[in-house]
Amino acid sequence: MPLLGHSIIAGEDVEGHAGSAFAQAPATSTALEPAFTLLDEAQVADAVGTAAAAFADYRATSPVARAAFLEAVAEEIEADGGEIVQRAVLESGLTTARLTGELARTCGQLRMFAAVVRRADHRGVRVDPALPDRAPLPRPDLRVRQVPLGPVVVFGASNFPLAFSTAGGDTASALAAGCPVVVKAHPAHPGTSELVARAVARASARTGMPPGVFSLVHGAGTEVGRQLVTDPRVKAVGFTGSRAGGLALVAAAAARAEPIPVYAEMSSVNPVVILPGALSGAAGVVTALAAGYLASLTGSAGQLCTKPGLLFLPAGPIGDAFVAGIAATQTGMPGTTMLTSGIRAAYDRGVGRLARSAGVSTVATGTNGGGANAPASVVASTDLATFGADPELADEVFGAAGLVVRYDPAGAEGVDRLRDTLAGLEGQLTATLRLDPASEDDLRIARILLPALEDRAGRVLVNGWPTGVEVTHAMVHGGPFPATSDSRTTSVGSLAIERFQRPVCYQDLPDALLPEDLRSDNPWDVPRSIDGARP
Amino acid sequence: MPLLGHSIIAGEDVEGHAGSAFAQAPATSTALEPAFTLLDEAQVADAVGTAAAAFADYRATSPVARAAFLEAVAEEIEADGGEIVQRAVLESGLTTARLTGELARTCGQLRMFAAVVRRADHRGVRVDPALPDRAPLPRPDLRVRQVPLGPVVVFGASNFPLAFSTAGGDTASALAAGCPVVVKAHPAHPGTSELVARAVARASARTGMPPGVFSLVHGAGTEVGRQLVTDPRVKAVGFTGSRAGGLALVAAAAARAEPIPVYAEMSSVNPVVILPGALSGAAGVVTALAAGYLASLTGSAGQLCTKPGLLFLPAGPIGDAFVAGIAATQTGMPGTTMLTSGIRAAYDRGVGRLARSAGVSTVATGTNGGGANAPASVVASTDLATFGADPELADEVFGAAGLVVRYDPAGAEGVDRLRDTLAGLEGQLTATLRLDPASEDDLRIARILLPALEDRAGRVLVNGWPTGVEVTHAMVHGGPFPATSDSRTTSVGSLAIERFQRPVCYQDLPDALLPEDLRSDNPWDVPRSIDGARP
Repeated sequence: MPLLGHSIIAGEDVEGHAGSAFAQAPATSTALEPAFTLLDEAQVADAVGTAAAAFADYRATSPVARAAFLEAVAEEIEADGGEIVQRAVLESGLTTARLTGELARTCGQLRMFAAVVRRADHRGVRVDPALPDRAPLPRPDLRVRQVPLGPVVVFGASNFPLAFSTAGGDTASALAAGCPVVVKAHPAHPGTSELVARAVARASARTGMPPGVFSLVHGAGTEVGRQLVTDPRVKAVGFTGSRAGGLALVAAAAARAEPIPVYAEMSSVNPVVILPGALSGAAGVVTALAAGYLASLTGSAGQLCTKPGLLFLPAGPIGDAFVAGIAATQTGMPGTTMLTSGIRAAYDRGVGRLARSAGVSTVATGTNGGGANAPASVVASTDLATFGADPELADEVFGAAGLVVRYDPAGAEGVDRLRDTLAGLEGQLTATLRLDPASEDDLRIARILLPALEDRAGRVLVNGWPTGVEVTHAMVHGGPFPATSDSRTTSVGSLAIERFQRPVCYQDLPDALLPEDLRSDNPWDVPRSIDGARP
Repeated sequence: MPLLGHSIIAGEDVEGHAGSAFAQAPATSTALEPAFTLLDEAQVADAVGTAAAAFADYRATSPVARAAFLEAVAEEIEADGGEIVQRAVLESGLTTARLTGELARTCGQLRMFAAVVRRADHRGVRVDPALPDRAPLPRPDLRVRQVPLGPVVVFGASNFPLAFSTAGGDTASALAAGCPVVVKAHPAHPGTSELVARAVARASARTGMPPGVFSLVHGAGTEVGRQLVTDPRVKAVGFTGSRAGGLALVAAAAARAEPIPVYAEMSSVNPVVILPGALSGAAGVVTALAAGYLASLTGSAGQLCTKPGLLFLPAGPIGDAFVAGIAATQTGMPGTTMLTSGIRAAYDRGVGRLARSAGVSTVATGTNGGGANAPASVVASTDLATFGADPELADEVFGAAGLVVRYDPAGAEGVDRLRDTLAGLEGQLTATLRLDPASEDDLRIARILLPALEDRAGRVLVNGWPTGVEVTHAMVHGGPFPATSDSRTTSVGSLAIERFQRPVCYQDLPDALLPEDLRSDNPWDVPRSIDGARP
């Protein structure tokens, strides 16, 4: 069906009363039809109202029914997959290949959460049976389970129009936990959002969910976001975006009469440390390493949360070969279209700041790509002392820009300085070591650096690149502040469901009053521990 | 050994440089020897420094070593048990029986966490093995574990000199998670704190822990608390106390350059709803129910977080019998000593406010007890309409004061009004239903009320009283704001350990670099799931 420029509230099309806006095609800097009407305050409140009204019924859905809903969402998205990807290409400037992969990831993620819901481990059921004969006092029967927090607001992310937006990871994990979701559509891809929202609404209708389980709202400016976060019926927030945006939401949520958790994934420069062993061996090894770095740096125009923005490289000839490899690969490499002209302008400012910094020199640049917003990639270089003296050099430049920091790998002092520099970084999503696992010297240095990296990051890699986040049970896409606002959680992988739950204990409830997942006959076959042990 | 009035920093006695203070015996309003010297800013910073320095070694301790430390703490506390209880009686005014029980609970809690540490389930290990042949790209090896956050500050609680103070639940769970702890001694029981801190220090020394794993600091006023919470080396805070105190710490932590979690357990009135069936049957049943209520209300002078401050009772003759039962039991019942003269004064103000409230009448009062600070207990009464119109009536009065709210149990409208009133309460630690499980009518009403109670509380009880919190695997001592600052957690029971951890994912680390709990040969025998499933 054609795009109508509507919000979708509890399965119904809603025309907004607060004006309208067009998406912009970043490749051409032109407006894309149709106009999207924007909701006014009362309409946004209505959307939250439908979510609040749906909560009681939705939270009570059985594992089977809730899982079927999530799987239906995946099916309905796939049914419109071609159209969704086509519109997302126009709105985001990302390639068809990237967005096709992102759509598959989005649907895979929904199915993973369906499997998690069916397995029901996340309900965290623990039973401590009554001890009626315990002296001096009998022990009551105690049962705990995790219950959903309530309606959740999700903000679409500019850089993942599918996997971190309308039916992305935050939405999938909140729905899996039993929370209705209101998505604030990202203004850069409203059409993609509408198409995906229609798929969710169809899935909801055909699996018999309460309609308010999902809504998509188009709204102007930051005021609608603020309204959503401060609505007392909203109980948690998921956000992926800028540090300023995330911190504003965190502050608004903390100032509520009842504060609520905000899971904001904000900024990260994802340090990579190349140890000497990784640069030894055949010349081709170093060239391939440099090419791998550039691919990770420039993929999706460098607009990935896990882009390796900071690379620590041995000083001296051994590192020079890597720098030469960068220059050889990067020179002439065309830039690719960025998400919006605003993001492109911010990239230009970031690159300009880097270029003007004392003690920083340019290693290589690519060339401008075709279209309106495809700036050249940039790799700059400095040394550890300069880096340590200028905190701004550790700031994220969103886009295909990287900073190489040369360190002295010789002797204990050089390694200790490197470790101290890493330990002094802000919180990161990832930290990576490139090393030769057969080199005792690399392993020795790695053991010195690893505690600092683990302390500063949510994911530690050896011999990979941080971009390309697997959606699995062991994944952590999170990390200490300001990588995220809550280091205790992840926004990717099955652990993400825990963000939207809280424990409730039931003491001495008769079976007639216990919820299904705690009843003695365990009708939903939910895994449970007894007295702290798995049977 | 005699009390020296010292802080204990990393196992060493430290005399404070910022003056001194005496504990006050609340029973007599007189000072207790000796003077406790107070630390100045540099000394407090030193204590945090020792915790930060101990973190790397302490977090690396094996499950066996860490569990042995926790068990040694229990043993050392028991070794000085008589002396500790004796001092705690003097400082708190609580009875020997209560404090003997609290000491046993404190040690039981430490041993439970030792068992949790040995079992190592809390490390949350999940492995997603590599899929080298996956198309289009191989999957890396991914392993996640929970790591400790870092140094934790624990504030001693006035109302639990043992179980929520120096070596209480927050300290035990933080130590179990692998976090060094700095305890801010509560000024109302500094001697108890010193004795327990010496026991912890002995246990630490004899089990070979890094000395900075534990410190106890005596400090003046709120400034030392603020310093501790805002020290950048501190990574989490545990607090049990007043709403104002808790919110101040939450705000200070949120304003840090790197915000940190504060687990503040603040205020709760623990609604109890008596359904008609609970009042039917022999006259003795109602009298016993009223006596049970009063015992829960007045135990420990009403100074328990889970005291049933609010009781909803059917209007009409059936409820009148319960009120008569209260009056019969309570009249002449002597008050018991409160924790401090300040707490007693706040109780007097709260009771005065209740007495002056329009539409509230006194059901019964006890009499003043012996000593300086043993005011009479008070039970007041009002109706649902008055209660709904005056939000202050739902505020906690810390001490042996209760409010009975009469509701109309007849017809759907009356029950709906009750449900709406319960749904409108602030977040609570507990919510209780008293009912006849054989009464279909009680079960019907219970099913209407339970969703509201579950939504507002961390623990829901049937036919018990909320005081008397079991320390088990299924316990939740937490709840929506303002019962706690973070409803996703509990401060009692083995789940409390999760407050002090965050997940870290390890991608493709060779066994030579993996921590023990993730290594392929699993030397610590830590439970792990594979691809999301338990083997």
